[in-house]
Amino acid sequence: MTDPASAYEHLAIAVRNLIDATIRTELEPDAVASAAAQIDAITARLSAVQMPGSFGQRSSSDGQSAASGNVVIGRRNPSAPPLVVHQEKDGSVWAECVFGAAYEGPAGHVHGGVCAVILDHVLGATAHKPGRPAYTGTLTLRYHRGTPLHKLLRAEAWIDRVEGVKTFAAGQLKDSDGVTVSAQGVFIHPRG
Amino acid sequence: MTDPASAYEHLAIAVRNLIDATIRTELEPDAVASAAAQIDAITARLSAVQMPGSFGQRSSSDGQSAASGNVVIGRRNPSAPPLVVHQEKDGSVWAECVFGAAYEGPAGHVHGGVCAVILDHVLGATAHKPGRPAYTGTLTLRYHRGTPLHKLLRAEAWIDRVEGVKTFAAGQLKDSDGVTVSAQGVFIHPRG
Repeated sequence: MTDPASAYEHLAIAVRNLIDATIRTELEPDAVASAAAQIDAITARLSAVQMPGSFGQRSSSDGQSAASGNVVIGRRNPSAPPLVVHQEKDGSVWAECVFGAAYEGPAGHVHGGVCAVILDHVLGATAHKPGRPAYTGTLTLRYHRGTPLHKLLRAEAWIDRVEGVKTFAAGQLKDSDGVTVSAQGVFIHPRG
Repeated sequence: MTDPASAYEHLAIAVRNLIDATIRTELEPDAVASAAAQIDAITARLSAVQMPGSFGQRSSSDGQSAASGNVVIGRRNPSAPPLVVHQEKDGSVWAECVFGAAYEGPAGHVHGGVCAVILDHVLGATAHKPGRPAYTGTLTLRYHRGTPLHKLLRAEAWIDRVEGVKTFAAGQLKDSDGVTVSAQGVFIHPRG
């Protein structure tokens, strides 16, 4: 018997690889149409037994992380890199990633919005406390130059200051040549 | 013989549906493992004949849009909604979309970074001219409340003013209850 969480994660990895192949394939059209039909059949099998809505709306608790469907860090989400976020004792946060063909904006470069997704998530992570999520209030991004595909990138964020329910965070995305995008954000803990 | 562009787009649609099913399936683990193995076999066939790098880096011109791999609008990119951007004669731009499980951040809501991707793209589209792309200089996002999954959303953008190579644009994302995220950005046409 396969471990459930592991089986679901391996499925997501398989689909992540399929996304890349779907964008880049130059296989002849009839073979592509045949592949699409096979995929439709697999989708029908998988969706015959499924949760309603989205992953975060599930009521069950079977050991799978509530964030498994998250578009940035979700290990069950094939569209997620998935980003692995590291939190240091000094409150800073970092993550490393390489983006492939599925994240393209300008030719050969990561879409500016994808850089925004990553920075939103990493800056927000400086404010997250267990059981006490923080929501983005404002986010300002400054694009210094294009962010390359297929190269190792590092996203970093740190807390500038905390005022009541507001955490003021800053951060940057960089490659081996330096910063490509810098960011500032205000993240808010809902009063409760 | 299947039309090439149409076959590739249908493949992307099939994989887009598979992404949703991958996140939401509750099929038993052995059946999930079997599906993953079948997907790996399809990926191997598709990637046996493929372009190097990413879609936008292709040198060939066979009638497929250069943006087919784009993570926001690319019809060959299964991770793209794909957004259909409408440009009005007055320079304003709009797009409508519904986000499912693959775009989740907070439970039941669109990830704040995904809202940023959409607004970056729609604001930027106000500055795009044929053959003369514009790049994001700065982008500031203000989050008013959560953006719901599974509801019709409308993204709108317009030009505030143009100063030389800089276009100052503004816009918003809204659902039937009003604005969820507003944005301002500066988009730059490279000199040359």
